[in-house]
Amino acid sequence: MPAIITLITDFGLGDGYVGSMKGVILGVNPDTAIVDISHIVPPQDIKEAAYLLGSVWESFPQHTVHLCVVDPGVGTSRKAVILRTPKADFVAPDNGVLSYILQCTGDTASRRQINVPAGMEAVSITNHQFWCQPVSNVFHGRDIFAPVAAHLSRGIALKEFGDKLDSLTCFALPQPVQEEAGVFAGEIIHIDGFGNVITNFLDKHLPAEGSSLSIEIGKHIIVGLSRHYQDGKGLIGLIGSSGRLEIALKEGNARKYLKATVGQKVMVRMDADAGFRLPF
Amino acid sequence: MPAIITLITDFGLGDGYVGSMKGVILGVNPDTAIVDISHIVPPQDIKEAAYLLGSVWESFPQHTVHLCVVDPGVGTSRKAVILRTPKADFVAPDNGVLSYILQCTGDTASRRQINVPAGMEAVSITNHQFWCQPVSNVFHGRDIFAPVAAHLSRGIALKEFGDKLDSLTCFALPQPVQEEAGVFAGEIIHIDGFGNVITNFLDKHLPAEGSSLSIEIGKHIIVGLSRHYQDGKGLIGLIGSSGRLEIALKEGNARKYLKATVGQKVMVRMDADAGFRLPF
Amino acid sequence: MPAIITLITDFGLGDGYVGSMKGVILGVNPDTAIVDISHIVPPQDIKEAAYLLGSVWESFPQHTVHLCVVDPGVGTSRKAVILRTPKADFVAPDNGVLSYILQCTGDTASRRQINVPAGMEAVSITNHQFWCQPVSNVFHGRDIFAPVAAHLSRGIALKEFGDKLDSLTCFALPQPVQEEAGVFAGEIIHIDGFGNVITNFLDKHLPAEGSSLSIEIGKHIIVGLSRHYQDGKGLIGLIGSSGRLEIALKEGNARKYLKATVGQKVMVRMDADAGFRLPF
Repeated sequence: MPAIITLITDFGLGDGYVGSMKGVILGVNPDTAIVDISHIVPPQDIKEAAYLLGSVWESFPQHTVHLCVVDPGVGTSRKAVILRTPKADFVAPDNGVLSYILQCTGDTASRRQINVPAGMEAVSITNHQFWCQPVSNVFHGRDIFAPVAAHLSRGIALKEFGDKLDSLTCFALPQPVQEEAGVFAGEIIHIDGFGNVITNFLDKHLPAEGSSLSIEIGKHIIVGLSRHYQDGKGLIGLIGSSGRLEIALKEGNARKYLKATVGQKVMVRMDADAGFRLPF
Repeated sequence: MPAIITLITDFGLGDGYVGSMKGVILGVNPDTAIVDISHIVPPQDIKEAAYLLGSVWESFPQHTVHLCVVDPGVGTSRKAVILRTPKADFVAPDNGVLSYILQCTGDTASRRQINVPAGMEAVSITNHQFWCQPVSNVFHGRDIFAPVAAHLSRGIALKEFGDKLDSLTCFALPQPVQEEAGVFAGEIIHIDGFGNVITNFLDKHLPAEGSSLSIEIGKHIIVGLSRHYQDGKGLIGLIGSSGRLEIALKEGNARKYLKATVGQKVMVRMDADAGFRLPF
Repeated sequence: MPAIITLITDFGLGDGYVGSMKGVILGVNPDTAIVDISHIVPPQDIKEAAYLLGSVWESFPQHTVHLCVVDPGVGTSRKAVILRTPKADFVAPDNGVLSYILQCTGDTASRRQINVPAGMEAVSITNHQFWCQPVSNVFHGRDIFAPVAAHLSRGIALKEFGDKLDSLTCFALPQPVQEEAGVFAGEIIHIDGFGNVITNFLDKHLPAEGSSLSIEIGKHIIVGLSRHYQDGKGLIGLIGSSGRLEIALKEGNARKYLKATVGQKVMVRMDADAGFRLPF
């Protein structure tokens, strides 16, 4: 059974950077299925990479190695790390791209260190033995991350790669907050290629089917939830494929129609006694 | 020998949707070569997906599974289907994306049901046993199509996935028509990334080499056929890689030059006795 | 251990051309890891394809087959060739895409024939036995290059594919030249997706650390070298991942800022006695 390594980078599709990483991986572990998640993360957009990683890892089989190289600090003192969870391994710079795996909460204004959660283990990648030599100061993707991910996929023990870490760098994930009884403020956390606007309201936060619910974005109000993209007219709200409240435009592009941007406020109003489950 | 599953979607390259499908496939059948055909089909463009699928399947080995998820009706009552032909299996929504496989003819104005052709078999995908649970209403690509394609690639019998279907949904493929003796009207069915304009005239429709032939598009007339993209000057006509009459601009982009669009009329004139083979 | 075949083409991501090539490859050698390097080489841009190929091949394991189909002359009398080096095999049209592998020098104004370097072997692909039939005049990628690369990856002997060649077509790679004592003129040879501007100055050409060095591009002067993309302010110069002098804009896009284009002049000035190693 081949190992699986997934890749997320901001390297784009027109240069040889991703290809070079794959060459290194296959040199270390020829029996690897390499799966591209995306290479068109906007340059150095750590939060977008974090969201993407968070949206795919659960679909992969046990022991998949997820490699994420969105790394504006390459060559600086930022750490390179491996995070092991019961389901998967993650190899990345320690800059916040693992935030959705670590699921940290609290103040979203800045990055901070959080303790590695119970049930997970982390190490700092410091053992040169598993790197390509010489190491370029500007391309750890090829010279450090790719060979480390490949050695990891071959079953090399976690501790061989470096010392255990107790904390990792994290962005707190934005959570909806209650503004008054039955009124909650959330935000857009991602907009997909269809223009569907994905919010930080989770399915489990919303009232049971049949209760009243309205969504407010800009000057638009959407009443009730649709079940799929053909259900309803114009702007609709529905539970998307990652279990989040999503706003779509039937047979259109909600992003363009709403001029929506990541971070924009989205309000949800419901009966004050509708059973909205707190805390978020 | 690994199984092969090809993918066509309109999911784009910047989201995790394609990655999630691949994770599910590899979870079911780790020994699969997954081949991306395209993920940048214009959103919900069923006809473009159908053309693409029709342009590649013959190049793949026996028993390849072709998975096509361009699925504007996801979550509605549209069927999900498997079509088995002597050469390959196709897994897709029943919305017309299989039109080039089914090769249906007649009125091109609307979709309709046609009988599954002799030598092919179809089933409706209804057996939940092969799906990921819970099934998202808006992402059957991940929760139904991907696992079904993967189980199929492992050799699970067709009948296990659901009941036999006698008919499938189809767009009739546009055929050239004779307007008068020696004068035929066809249309543009695809424009490729080089700007080459591909028509619905097939090689076998055209007169034998040496006969007179002219092509008319907009106000332009092209006399005779070139053998390749460097043969001739300016606008040229030639037989493209899928055996269709194609219009190219030597060292340029015919689409931009002609402002060509899919569906646009293309005329072919030839000696009335040139042996133009009817019916188309 | 699966064979590895890498692909560089200008076929884009929206057509079935790349998919068809992969189908053919897997039909010939099912046990192949196919690695996409890039398919968005600008149409018919042989020099860009040559650069890309030159930037990745060293990262791949021994015996990788690199297939490059940027082939404006398809169907003409241009040769199709295999070049074997101690590390890898290259399959391509004989139009200059192998220039970085052949490392030819001299007048850069035009393509010319050079002798196959010592330690390398080349053959002309003429044996139809390894081709798909019938061969389209306009898609040798699918009908000649793909099946030949796949047969090669299975270990078919080089001489089986056609006759030995003594010379290949090559663009001379641009080399920096000394304009006066301590003053050298080079040029931009590539601009990556981040907007980083890559020059033809190699690491080994530059003076030892600590010596004075300045870079001049347009009306901008950069003093000294940075170690990575976060080192310094504004425009910086550094040694990029391929060992070349590169100009970057800290937290920005140097291409846009400089309106830089491939071929543009870049000057390097240093102490006349700084040990600049000649010849370039």
